[in-house]
Amino acid sequence: MKRHIYLKKKSLEEAKAIALEVADLIRLGTETIPVTQSLGRVIAEPLFAKISSPPFHCAAMDGIAVKATATYGATEESPRNLKIGEEAFFVNTGNPIPEGMDAVIMIEDVHLLDSETAEIREGTHPWQHVRSVGEDLIATEMVFPENHKITPYDVGALLTSGYRDVPVKRKPKVLVVPTGSELLEPEKSFPSASGASLGIIESNSYVLTGLLMEDGAEPVRHAVVQDDPKQIREALLSYGQKVDLILMIAGSSAGSEDYTRSIIEESGEVLAHGVSMMPGKPTLIGKFNGRPIVGIPGYPVSAIIAYEELVRPILYRSLQLMKPERQKIKVFLTRKIPSKLGTEEFLRVKIGKIGEKLFATPLPRGSGLITSLTRADGIIRIPALSEGLDEDKETVAELLRPLDEIHHTVVMVGSHDLTLDLLASLLRRSYPPLFLSSQNVGSLGGLLAIKNGICHLAGSHLLDPDTGEYNFPYIRQYLQGTPVRVIHLVNREQGLIVQHGNSKKVKGLKDLQREEVSFINRQKGSGTRILLDHLLKTLSLDPRQIRGYEREEFTHMAVASSVASGRVDAGLGILSAARALHLDFIPIGTERYDLVIPSVYFQGKEVQKILEAIRSREFKDMVLRMGGYDVSRTGEELREK
Amino acid sequence: MKRHIYLKKKSLEEAKAIALEVADLIRLGTETIPVTQSLGRVIAEPLFAKISSPPFHCAAMDGIAVKATATYGATEESPRNLKIGEEAFFVNTGNPIPEGMDAVIMIEDVHLLDSETAEIREGTHPWQHVRSVGEDLIATEMVFPENHKITPYDVGALLTSGYRDVPVKRKPKVLVVPTGSELLEPEKSFPSASGASLGIIESNSYVLTGLLMEDGAEPVRHAVVQDDPKQIREALLSYGQKVDLILMIAGSSAGSEDYTRSIIEESGEVLAHGVSMMPGKPTLIGKFNGRPIVGIPGYPVSAIIAYEELVRPILYRSLQLMKPERQKIKVFLTRKIPSKLGTEEFLRVKIGKIGEKLFATPLPRGSGLITSLTRADGIIRIPALSEGLDEDKETVAELLRPLDEIHHTVVMVGSHDLTLDLLASLLRRSYPPLFLSSQNVGSLGGLLAIKNGICHLAGSHLLDPDTGEYNFPYIRQYLQGTPVRVIHLVNREQGLIVQHGNSKKVKGLKDLQREEVSFINRQKGSGTRILLDHLLKTLSLDPRQIRGYEREEFTHMAVASSVASGRVDAGLGILSAARALHLDFIPIGTERYDLVIPSVYFQGKEVQKILEAIRSREFKDMVLRMGGYDVSRTGEELREK
Repeated sequence: MKRHIYLKKKSLEEAKAIALEVADLIRLGTETIPVTQSLGRVIAEPLFAKISSPPFHCAAMDGIAVKATATYGATEESPRNLKIGEEAFFVNTGNPIPEGMDAVIMIEDVHLLDSETAEIREGTHPWQHVRSVGEDLIATEMVFPENHKITPYDVGALLTSGYRDVPVKRKPKVLVVPTGSELLEPEKSFPSASGASLGIIESNSYVLTGLLMEDGAEPVRHAVVQDDPKQIREALLSYGQKVDLILMIAGSSAGSEDYTRSIIEESGEVLAHGVSMMPGKPTLIGKFNGRPIVGIPGYPVSAIIAYEELVRPILYRSLQLMKPERQKIKVFLTRKIPSKLGTEEFLRVKIGKIGEKLFATPLPRGSGLITSLTRADGIIRIPALSEGLDEDKETVAELLRPLDEIHHTVVMVGSHDLTLDLLASLLRRSYPPLFLSSQNVGSLGGLLAIKNGICHLAGSHLLDPDTGEYNFPYIRQYLQGTPVRVIHLVNREQGLIVQHGNSKKVKGLKDLQREEVSFINRQKGSGTRILLDHLLKTLSLDPRQIRGYEREEFTHMAVASSVASGRVDAGLGILSAARALHLDFIPIGTERYDLVIPSVYFQGKEVQKILEAIRSREFKDMVLRMGGYDVSRTGEELREK
Repeated sequence: MKRHIYLKKKSLEEAKAIALEVADLIRLGTETIPVTQSLGRVIAEPLFAKISSPPFHCAAMDGIAVKATATYGATEESPRNLKIGEEAFFVNTGNPIPEGMDAVIMIEDVHLLDSETAEIREGTHPWQHVRSVGEDLIATEMVFPENHKITPYDVGALLTSGYRDVPVKRKPKVLVVPTGSELLEPEKSFPSASGASLGIIESNSYVLTGLLMEDGAEPVRHAVVQDDPKQIREALLSYGQKVDLILMIAGSSAGSEDYTRSIIEESGEVLAHGVSMMPGKPTLIGKFNGRPIVGIPGYPVSAIIAYEELVRPILYRSLQLMKPERQKIKVFLTRKIPSKLGTEEFLRVKIGKIGEKLFATPLPRGSGLITSLTRADGIIRIPALSEGLDEDKETVAELLRPLDEIHHTVVMVGSHDLTLDLLASLLRRSYPPLFLSSQNVGSLGGLLAIKNGICHLAGSHLLDPDTGEYNFPYIRQYLQGTPVRVIHLVNREQGLIVQHGNSKKVKGLKDLQREEVSFINRQKGSGTRILLDHLLKTLSLDPRQIRGYEREEFTHMAVASSVASGRVDAGLGILSAARALHLDFIPIGTERYDLVIPSVYFQGKEVQKILEAIRSREFKDMVLRMGGYDVSRTGEELREK
């Protein structure tokens, strides 16, 4: 068992240069395909028109073709009669102009006296309503240079210039080899009704396959290969000379079972191993059997970043096309982001337009979180020479979604509730669709986001222990000078979420003090945490007696999941979260969850659409089906007592 | 033969509203397909995770799984020994953490004393290097809302959350019916060696097919249908209930053989006929047999604009997705553009970045010119309520090409020469590719473009009749205060281009005065025009004696094409143009064609790449193969004598 340490880590710039260098190993030949199937392909040589367009002088209008001189002097008062078949010929748009004729009179301006005579009341001039041969394209003229990617419009120009077939570059054929003994093939690995899964479902290869197709390559996916040098070697050799590029997923970090490097070195060379970027560090670039090979890290976000930063340039270089760039926009960060000096970081962010400014909120940074990309609106690159980005400072984000969608997105910050997902889905049924982006930072965080002007509305369930009143006391305290409206969303049950069967026999908060019971808390500032602290105080229970009081999660589902996985015995949360994961639930009380909306956005089309949605029967029915909710006053506006 | 007049023309806004209304006739059902084939499809219902990801607590690193408490107190000085298989278990990234263990120590930090004992020299804490169950996705959590379009990233999230199959909206199936008796099927109509074509090659349906596929629809192309009501009716009915939308190309204008409207009215309703836009006026929107039908105009640019403005919204509405918008940028027009009040015009433009500004130059406006789209970098919408756009005024263009490509484009304005196309193709071989955009406005126009700061270089062959010197006298006169460098491109033969066989026996310029010889001229300010006028003067010939002296074309190829089509007998141009169209050529003299480059751009990477290209053997060989060129001094810098 040989263990590798990274070669001296390369900067991303150095690694890109190496990628472009190995790209030159790829020699795409030319193949000739029908123009009608050439969309997205790359023209291999300059193409010159085979015929002119139009190919002859032709009518630009429906009407009669005439010789202009024969019409000179015709007026309303002294019309001219033309003999059909001799001096005038019916033509439709696109028909050739008959020999000897040189103009077309529109059918609207022709008066048919009988089947043989056309009367005209106005003269015309030569070439009127005639498209001259070659007006669009002249035979032998260059239609497209080489290395041009064919668009739908281009298909028209190619057919028009006489091409039935077109010489294009062969698509780069890319072998994708997922490795890892822990991986299950998707089609074989689907979970039982209980939701249990015995391994990690292999998905990276399918993500890469999709990206490869979008980039004009032809992917060939190999089945999952075990962490076994013999099998890995066989997989790499299996396609012989038939592929242009090999992507080897996982196995390129410095771990014990990473054989990739040794195997590559048997038949090639490793040029880079370890790149100063995050995610994506354990990327490898080399040559294997005379073709480029890239070792792609196994974590999903790392795999994607490695692909986009280092594989994509290889493909575009081989196709001789410019790599497409994402649209860049200026955004303000909603919080400070420290970053590791010497490493280029790809920070995934949610972006929202609040007033006239675009705000970016970082998503979790773990490279194992595919949702940090699927939920992202953009990526901020933090340069290697930076120690991070400051709050409120303008920075550049690359968009993952169209800007227009971001402009149609309502940003909600605050407490997490499962009904918000249902609302988001429902809003996608309006047209144009409205997008709801929710960020879970707890109730108090939501009110502060309103204060800081970085959201359109907040979800809040903050109990004031002194008065028993919800939300308004906090609004008074934190949102002075920012007028808001409060719309009731739901009443919901909070309680202790415990193992299915409740083997530890937890019956209430008092039981949390028992030594064998472990707990998971919610973060400070969340309504649930405030509720817990209030209840503990009421019951005179000491938080220091609760094992796990200091461990925090940010959502009800995360709390429920901690319980479900056996990591802890209990947590405080809502019934629907317990029910979703088949856990037991000990009710503790009902609380009010409201939407707090700055008055300045209240009358906006977007907020009004949201109010309409939550007041709909459909929404209420969906919520009731989840259990643990009371919707009797959902959608009502609440006022301070 | 019933002739229609347009219904009251609709504004584009009104027509769009009607399009969205008929879109609601489309009911796309749901179909379930494998996730691995779902790229680009639209999720039909909200999807909730079936399993958590990771599905169990698992190792985030290769190493040994331990119980953290068993490691407390380990230091360099007092290492701790753990028994493998009891207190320590080898795990690779992604492996489940064995029962009872709660942390992973990286393999790099483990010292194997023997096969049964691992020594560690530092303690760890619980959950170190462990990915908790549900860290990425918790079972039952919403993964995607309905009406979400699946990206490659999303394929990863779907597989990871336990989906093997995914419910998606059925693709809208669109019947495309090209009509017109003048049309030839591409696969049957290809020209003979002589380049002759007996009809217009049908291409619109294939352009639309490509656009439909890009927009997520499933096109079904019908064969060309003759202008015959029976055949048109049969075509529309042929797919019965199996299509969601019908596009009927041509036949919807007000001409004599446009039967579409009557046929639609037999089984439906025409809601709009005639839209105030250009190109695209003769568009029709209606219902036919309970489904939307759009009558698409027959001219290629009209067809595309009608599709993009009125069909695309129908598709996105039916898929419940936001219609993608093109990137918009601010540009300055290089010349004034008058436009018809009351009509929204879609002006195709070339865009170039000169210095820090983006300049847009209008392309020919004819709706029959597909090249006005394939050569365009963007589209400027001139609103219905505008009478046109002013020169030098900032306006908005929608990009047809990535902005990045425009930034990599060298803008050349001036005289036309066929070698420029070869140069453009050659420059696409460098990497990243360099794009050469040439606008043909004649030599003098090129120098004025330099003066106005709207190009990077100009092509010029301006003879000073007094001194016999090329270009420098004009540079002195027109470019005072703008330092330029002059690079010689080619010497080329100019001569009279005449019919193959030269039946009119034209032997020189004198013959142009003969009554039976017709001529086509080049535009004022072109080097060829100046050469002609100079030669006529030298020979004491009177331009007024030349039939066609006042008719102007803008390129050598357009002149040659006029001759080839029989429209005129002779024109002045270069040998390569005559040769390209198999015409005869009577040499008149050799002239010098140079590149004039403002000094401020001369040292730039782009211009240097161009110089490198024209100095290459490859370029010179390509030029020589065209005939009529002398490349002995190509690429040399010329200085004023």
